[in-house]
Amino acid sequence: MIKNAEIIAVGSELLTPSRVDTNSLYLTELLNSIGIEVELKTIVGDSENRLEQVLREAIKRSELVIATGGLGPTEDDITKKVVARVIKKQMVLEERILERIQFRFRSRGLEMPANNARQALVPVGARILENPVGTAPGLWIEHEGCHILLLPGPPRELKVIFEASCMPRLTEFSGGIRLATQVFKVTGMTESRLDEIIAPIYTRYKNPTTTILAAAGEIHVHLIAKGKSEEDAKRILTDLADKIEYELGDFVFSRGEESLEQIVGYYLLMRQMTLAVAESCTGGLISQRITSVPGSSSYFLCGVTCYSNASKIDLAGIPPLLIEMNGAVSPEVAKGLAEGIRLKTGATIGVGVTGIAGPAGGSVNKPVGLVHIALALDNTVEHQEHRFGGDRERIRLWASQAALDMVRRKLI
Amino acid sequence: MIKNAEIIAVGSELLTPSRVDTNSLYLTELLNSIGIEVELKTIVGDSENRLEQVLREAIKRSELVIATGGLGPTEDDITKKVVARVIKKQMVLEERILERIQFRFRSRGLEMPANNARQALVPVGARILENPVGTAPGLWIEHEGCHILLLPGPPRELKVIFEASCMPRLTEFSGGIRLATQVFKVTGMTESRLDEIIAPIYTRYKNPTTTILAAAGEIHVHLIAKGKSEEDAKRILTDLADKIEYELGDFVFSRGEESLEQIVGYYLLMRQMTLAVAESCTGGLISQRITSVPGSSSYFLCGVTCYSNASKIDLAGIPPLLIEMNGAVSPEVAKGLAEGIRLKTGATIGVGVTGIAGPAGGSVNKPVGLVHIALALDNTVEHQEHRFGGDRERIRLWASQAALDMVRRKLI
Repeated sequence: MIKNAEIIAVGSELLTPSRVDTNSLYLTELLNSIGIEVELKTIVGDSENRLEQVLREAIKRSELVIATGGLGPTEDDITKKVVARVIKKQMVLEERILERIQFRFRSRGLEMPANNARQALVPVGARILENPVGTAPGLWIEHEGCHILLLPGPPRELKVIFEASCMPRLTEFSGGIRLATQVFKVTGMTESRLDEIIAPIYTRYKNPTTTILAAAGEIHVHLIAKGKSEEDAKRILTDLADKIEYELGDFVFSRGEESLEQIVGYYLLMRQMTLAVAESCTGGLISQRITSVPGSSSYFLCGVTCYSNASKIDLAGIPPLLIEMNGAVSPEVAKGLAEGIRLKTGATIGVGVTGIAGPAGGSVNKPVGLVHIALALDNTVEHQEHRFGGDRERIRLWASQAALDMVRRKLI
Repeated sequence: MIKNAEIIAVGSELLTPSRVDTNSLYLTELLNSIGIEVELKTIVGDSENRLEQVLREAIKRSELVIATGGLGPTEDDITKKVVARVIKKQMVLEERILERIQFRFRSRGLEMPANNARQALVPVGARILENPVGTAPGLWIEHEGCHILLLPGPPRELKVIFEASCMPRLTEFSGGIRLATQVFKVTGMTESRLDEIIAPIYTRYKNPTTTILAAAGEIHVHLIAKGKSEEDAKRILTDLADKIEYELGDFVFSRGEESLEQIVGYYLLMRQMTLAVAESCTGGLISQRITSVPGSSSYFLCGVTCYSNASKIDLAGIPPLLIEMNGAVSPEVAKGLAEGIRLKTGATIGVGVTGIAGPAGGSVNKPVGLVHIALALDNTVEHQEHRFGGDRERIRLWASQAALDMVRRKLI
């Protein structure tokens, strides 16, 4: 039975001032969900000696050791070599892996560089964990009662392999305590306001534990309940979750992993409506978020990033006089963009956004962070005025969040 | 003389899925600036056993060990106790510290809680590092040739103590070694192809060290050189950097922290050119990246995310017959988008992108990942065909990268 784990992140880049090991956060979350605690994390550079020392200690003290990174095709990718040395196994070439790697390159019309053959070397006896999205497979090695998992460093590859090939088997090994979790994603209120509302409730519970996390433009309330069985954990969870959900009402946009753009997509699909966007200060971010959802082409018709005034007039159908009279950042222009793009594309809903993302371009009357958002549906146009703080990136993000939430609230 | 360091972050909260140890990033930056390299980082919970193991190893292998956190007044603040055990010293009560802590509480009209007396306990022989902004002082201990620094976990306290009481002394001990660093950002080739080209060069050098990192759609080559002085480090760096830069040629898009969209912006500004984009599968991502750069409104006129065929016709000026004859994903439509948006907006350069981002919508002839990119300038239109692997997010990102790089290469 596996109860504790440690994570070793390999890579000199993770020892620089600017890089953070995010893989371990993801792994910790999933391990915790099946009752396995992460007791130690180590970050080690591409140094064979150091990695060897760290691995030897880790294998001695932990039941599960997950090493991430250092499985690439280059000289400084040392993880497999060092593990083989520590567990005293030879490396063999796995034809099956080699063929997969060669196929990946061929299917893109490329020749496999000789270096990549290195990725098909495997310590004898290792279980191979398929990597459907990259060249380096993961490996699962059992050695003197310790489970050693080697996973590639790129987060996308690590996640696919870990969820498909590791979690099911680890769940079997973890036995005992079960966790149940719930996330509420909230937008449109501040973190302190949210805490004011729900702290009187969640502070009365030791189990579930409640964690409040401010993410970009939204707040996530995480509940984790422990129980003797899945049903037990779920029962303990639901008791608190229901109360919190009741208090937060329709500020909650998601009860799971869905993003705001996914939720907006669901509603549009459900109501068989279509959407078009004319955005200025958000610069394409709203379009980009909406179209990041697979299948969005069935409800998203078109977006226009109208940075120049000429493009506001030509592409989003704004009357030139409207800009002249009110300025490009005004309720009138936001409404004009929403109506204009709706008429031009025949979409059910048109959204218009104009504002000042900064750092330059602000004035006393129209400061950096001022954003007007409008939504046109049938013959009505609604308008919101926002003042967002922070830098260009934050202002753009919060503006896109507010625009998407305006669509969501119109559809619920 | 101190050349290498390791950092131990103490605290169970740092082993949760949501918390990152940021102190070590700050410490790494300052240590690097005086030529001390961080070779290992460990994050350990409030477990005496684990911390003891980690400390014993650290003291054996490193010249400088910095432990952060675990100096608070509560039961689970274990750092000092464990260090005293490892170096076999008794703990004594330092009257001077106790008085300072009492004074801090009194000056706010509070009684010192009994717990806080614990913070005045110090292993015999330790040098006390004043904490002007909190109750826990830092400690500097020398033990069998190893310098052990204990610093409080709150970043504000850690920074004040480290800069005032540690950096001056560490600079003396570091023996004047200085680091110089250089990054090359490359796009348009695979990591293994890049390594094939430059490994024959960089493997001949122990100093500088070379690290190759694959980021989203690009590869970063990091060089770190050590020298006796700043000039010496720079000279050692330049020797290798020049050779690598020569081999990579114009695949290098940046020699610093600039992103591809910033570089494209520089060139457009420099040449007083303007840009407009008509994108389909990238869904606004290209617009969004370009407009993420402050000041982009002076060269970016407009972007159209034309998801529906009607919007390709109406907003980007594609002849309907062109789509009918070739399909929406075709070289002809990419070229039509580039030319159409250029003519419609009067931009110097028009970019058109169409492709299949997936997961659905692919066929044998036009598989998921197929992307056509075109660039229109004056009376010429150029076209590239790409096949990107991976999921929707990755395909969109690589397509945006290829489109931006096509603009960059046209302008250099």
